[in-house]
Amino acid sequence: MKDFQRVLDTINETSNNAVERGTIANYIPELAKIDMQKFGIHLIDIGQHHFSAGKGAERFSIQSISKVLTLSMALGLIGENIWERIDVEPSGDPFNHLSLLELENGIPRNPLINPGAIVVADILVSQLADPKKEFLAFVRNIANDDSIDYDEDVAQSERRTGFRNYAAANLLKSYGNLKNDVDIVLDFYFHQCSLSMSCEQLANTFFMFINRGNCRRGNTFLTMGQVKRINALMLTCGFYDESGEFAFEVGLPGKSGVGGGIVALLPNKFCVATWSPGLNKKGNSKLGMLALERLTTETELSIF
Amino acid sequence: MKDFQRVLDTINETSNNAVERGTIANYIPELAKIDMQKFGIHLIDIGQHHFSAGKGAERFSIQSISKVLTLSMALGLIGENIWERIDVEPSGDPFNHLSLLELENGIPRNPLINPGAIVVADILVSQLADPKKEFLAFVRNIANDDSIDYDEDVAQSERRTGFRNYAAANLLKSYGNLKNDVDIVLDFYFHQCSLSMSCEQLANTFFMFINRGNCRRGNTFLTMGQVKRINALMLTCGFYDESGEFAFEVGLPGKSGVGGGIVALLPNKFCVATWSPGLNKKGNSKLGMLALERLTTETELSIF
Amino acid sequence: MKDFQRVLDTINETSNNAVERGTIANYIPELAKIDMQKFGIHLIDIGQHHFSAGKGAERFSIQSISKVLTLSMALGLIGENIWERIDVEPSGDPFNHLSLLELENGIPRNPLINPGAIVVADILVSQLADPKKEFLAFVRNIANDDSIDYDEDVAQSERRTGFRNYAAANLLKSYGNLKNDVDIVLDFYFHQCSLSMSCEQLANTFFMFINRGNCRRGNTFLTMGQVKRINALMLTCGFYDESGEFAFEVGLPGKSGVGGGIVALLPNKFCVATWSPGLNKKGNSKLGMLALERLTTETELSIF
Amino acid sequence: MKDFQRVLDTINETSNNAVERGTIANYIPELAKIDMQKFGIHLIDIGQHHFSAGKGAERFSIQSISKVLTLSMALGLIGENIWERIDVEPSGDPFNHLSLLELENGIPRNPLINPGAIVVADILVSQLADPKKEFLAFVRNIANDDSIDYDEDVAQSERRTGFRNYAAANLLKSYGNLKNDVDIVLDFYFHQCSLSMSCEQLANTFFMFINRGNCRRGNTFLTMGQVKRINALMLTCGFYDESGEFAFEVGLPGKSGVGGGIVALLPNKFCVATWSPGLNKKGNSKLGMLALERLTTETELSIF
Repeated sequence: MKDFQRVLDTINETSNNAVERGTIANYIPELAKIDMQKFGIHLIDIGQHHFSAGKGAERFSIQSISKVLTLSMALGLIGENIWERIDVEPSGDPFNHLSLLELENGIPRNPLINPGAIVVADILVSQLADPKKEFLAFVRNIANDDSIDYDEDVAQSERRTGFRNYAAANLLKSYGNLKNDVDIVLDFYFHQCSLSMSCEQLANTFFMFINRGNCRRGNTFLTMGQVKRINALMLTCGFYDESGEFAFEVGLPGKSGVGGGIVALLPNKFCVATWSPGLNKKGNSKLGMLALERLTTETELSIF
Repeated sequence: MKDFQRVLDTINETSNNAVERGTIANYIPELAKIDMQKFGIHLIDIGQHHFSAGKGAERFSIQSISKVLTLSMALGLIGENIWERIDVEPSGDPFNHLSLLELENGIPRNPLINPGAIVVADILVSQLADPKKEFLAFVRNIANDDSIDYDEDVAQSERRTGFRNYAAANLLKSYGNLKNDVDIVLDFYFHQCSLSMSCEQLANTFFMFINRGNCRRGNTFLTMGQVKRINALMLTCGFYDESGEFAFEVGLPGKSGVGGGIVALLPNKFCVATWSPGLNKKGNSKLGMLALERLTTETELSIF
Repeated sequence: MKDFQRVLDTINETSNNAVERGTIANYIPELAKIDMQKFGIHLIDIGQHHFSAGKGAERFSIQSISKVLTLSMALGLIGENIWERIDVEPSGDPFNHLSLLELENGIPRNPLINPGAIVVADILVSQLADPKKEFLAFVRNIANDDSIDYDEDVAQSERRTGFRNYAAANLLKSYGNLKNDVDIVLDFYFHQCSLSMSCEQLANTFFMFINRGNCRRGNTFLTMGQVKRINALMLTCGFYDESGEFAFEVGLPGKSGVGGGIVALLPNKFCVATWSPGLNKKGNSKLGMLALERLTTETELSIF
Repeated sequence: MKDFQRVLDTINETSNNAVERGTIANYIPELAKIDMQKFGIHLIDIGQHHFSAGKGAERFSIQSISKVLTLSMALGLIGENIWERIDVEPSGDPFNHLSLLELENGIPRNPLINPGAIVVADILVSQLADPKKEFLAFVRNIANDDSIDYDEDVAQSERRTGFRNYAAANLLKSYGNLKNDVDIVLDFYFHQCSLSMSCEQLANTFFMFINRGNCRRGNTFLTMGQVKRINALMLTCGFYDESGEFAFEVGLPGKSGVGGGIVALLPNKFCVATWSPGLNKKGNSKLGMLALERLTTETELSIF
């Protein structure tokens, strides 16, 4: 366990000294304000020991990392029926999510790309009386942390500029794969993306994926089979068109967000979250990717 | 000239007796109410002699035929600058307009497919103080017919169900190729498509394309060079992914709409409009295509 | 008629003085040897008057222009059955001929792109006892010129480097749309492309497309309907992904080749051929395109 | 350990009784002769204990499973330089390998789809004096089994009908990503695919991927880092466009072949091979996929 802390400290130091830090996502104006110099990391092991370095307790916008959480909630609500409306294959493509939707008649490739997550959001909107409130309660529950909340400014900023998501939602609607009103679904979607959490909170939240579906307080939210499948999806689809590269270089299931956060995990061993706002060309946190590569290299822990 | 009338009468008779009449576009609910048995045709020659048969005087929704008219108005307003935002190549593709937009960074292939026409609509919204009113005045002026008007029911029907157009407009917006608000541009676009006109009115309106840019009253709306280019666009792009087939079988510039209308023309000779609501698999009027094929075969008049 | 000569002389002078001349196709090594400064033009009118300027009598490799000739011969042999194996729609795409073949299950978009012309070559190989000899005889016959011949060096050069054509032919074979051996079909195909002709010979050869299928000696090779359709194909598909642009700017059916030649024609009026080896980015002769634009602008003759 | 045998026996019994057995690959005529009723399975654990059921000792054509072996040999020879010519992302696409090659300028998505494996074959042809002989020696060495050999009939059968592979190789050549002659590279490629091995031999051969790069005799062929990366590639790319599904349902790195074989493995635990000639719609062994799903479900062993 001392090893984890030592490795995190080294990673934090290297990250703080890094010159090339990527570029901040500027298509969500609210995110463009973040300080590029920030770096944080937090790890929780299966015995619930915590290790932290840098800004591991500072909150940021988790963005696409939320897709794993809505997926988990939807799986809990409607089970495997979800796969009638979304596939589980990697998209592999950098640029053409809408093209794929057209080619594949409105069935998104997987739930971790935007069109797939929008369908998941649509399912939650159909299933829940007050989707935003209930989803937030679900996340607070898993994390055992009632301080987690949406960032309304980020949500509104994305609502005003998220034209590509409006395009995707309308295209899904034209294929009959969106049951609710586009604006209602996207309002929920932009809120889920705006969740503000620290690395520590993320690590706590994703603890259940290393612990057979049981969260830190022992409550069970997912079956072992569901956990295994979500982990598989994170590995094959969690990093856009850099998913293969991440599996190849890091070898852990995980999910990134354009807010600069990444969560990655080794079942039965540990769950780790990193944060650094600068992104590489593929839209994943540049220093976060390097940090996780170093972590698995130094600890020799990976699923492969 | 008697020949034209004889040919039109024969075509009308054959069309009335046709058993296979295609299927009506059902994605715009308001259009699905039309009587499949209707057939009309109207021809005006360069000397302004008129020939008509069947329901040549009955009005219908001109839909995509309006794209030629908005293009003409936009060309008159901003000239060749329009081509910085739209290309002039046939799309060739049945299914993937949005895919092409993604591949080509938000530049529509040509102004006669939906994304291209939405950019043209955006240009008019930018240029005109009251776009709907001024465009209607422009069409009435060319046609010399103040009875032409929008069909508000059709416009609203399409507004409620035109998800694919919302997808296209938002995608254009994400590429910076839509300057105005999506809802404002599409409101204009759905109105232009809802223009209600008869074959006779359409033939009158498109007369200027066979008469070097001069409308029936002698007013000049387009330069000779602009007319030539719009005619070229109608030939290469006027019939979705059946444009090659139409050039191949009929050999005239033209434009079709999902309301079942088709306009086709031979410069310096004649302009003809047909209407039959049933569409073939490519979305063009089934009997209208056959009628025009017969017309050019029997008269031996084509641009080739 | 004096006008034609005056216009050609002006075009020739402008072309000789042009600084930007495009770049030579370097993927066929044998073609890369040609002198960039060459320019020639030759026009024949419907009354068989000839007009020439520059290097109008110098031979060059006609390359893809030959696709119109093999198509004509195949149509004469098997008629409309040809369209069961090839479509007639523009491809519109700069880069992805093989992608389209995959999407459309081995049916080439049209006979004037490489995969389509390879299917046409396959048809001739099936139909003819000695394809190379008989096709050459056919061309000599139309042109009334027995000096026309293949350039064996060019054919062999292309055979050694035409990997993309081998890819297309094998892909067609995998879809069952190539009946003969790949090597045999491509040997014929590389020979047809290697035909060496001058602008004058090309204009003579394509005379039949302005003269209702009758060649200069009066022999009839194609029906009026076939001529009309081939002209339509040249207009919509004759210039790769610049076909729309050519129709838009020039307004004539035509066909280009990477050897720098272009043929264009106005039915019942004239047929013209130009040659200048430098190509624009789309693979069409840069000065040839400008020459034809000037010709139709100055003479005000176009199909639109 | 008794457990493994019990699970394998159950799987074997269920498989023998299965009614729906998929369909045999008929595009390689030689493979179409195999008896559909065959089923075999063989497992070796990290302690080198062996478990077998059904036709676990009968040889079949390993086909694409060989891609992992050529990749391993190439990595040993030129190291990470291999990634300059091949990417490591899943292709995700059922149908358009050549389309992807065109879109991505001749760089195959990963080494486990055909175009990628053809580049790997090209590398071996460049590196080895006698590629077929030396690659066979490499495989025999890893497997510690000199009876392994090519099936010349299968190799020749595929050479005569592998048009799509000829298309891919020529397309690669046109992009400069194939250094040797197409025929020489494909002759090697068809031979590697024709390797004839039993489930037992396959399990023995892939033992090194669960044993940190050390084969059963203790010789080291790959570094720990290389093993980890090849396992990641098998997980994300090993089952064509069903890779996500396999990760999702089975949760093990693996590779399938159209001969009906599948190898799958859990690092530090076990390596298993199955064989059943009938394929599902995605080209993977139908009963083999079910067998592995059952194996990981019953043993609760997976990487997730």
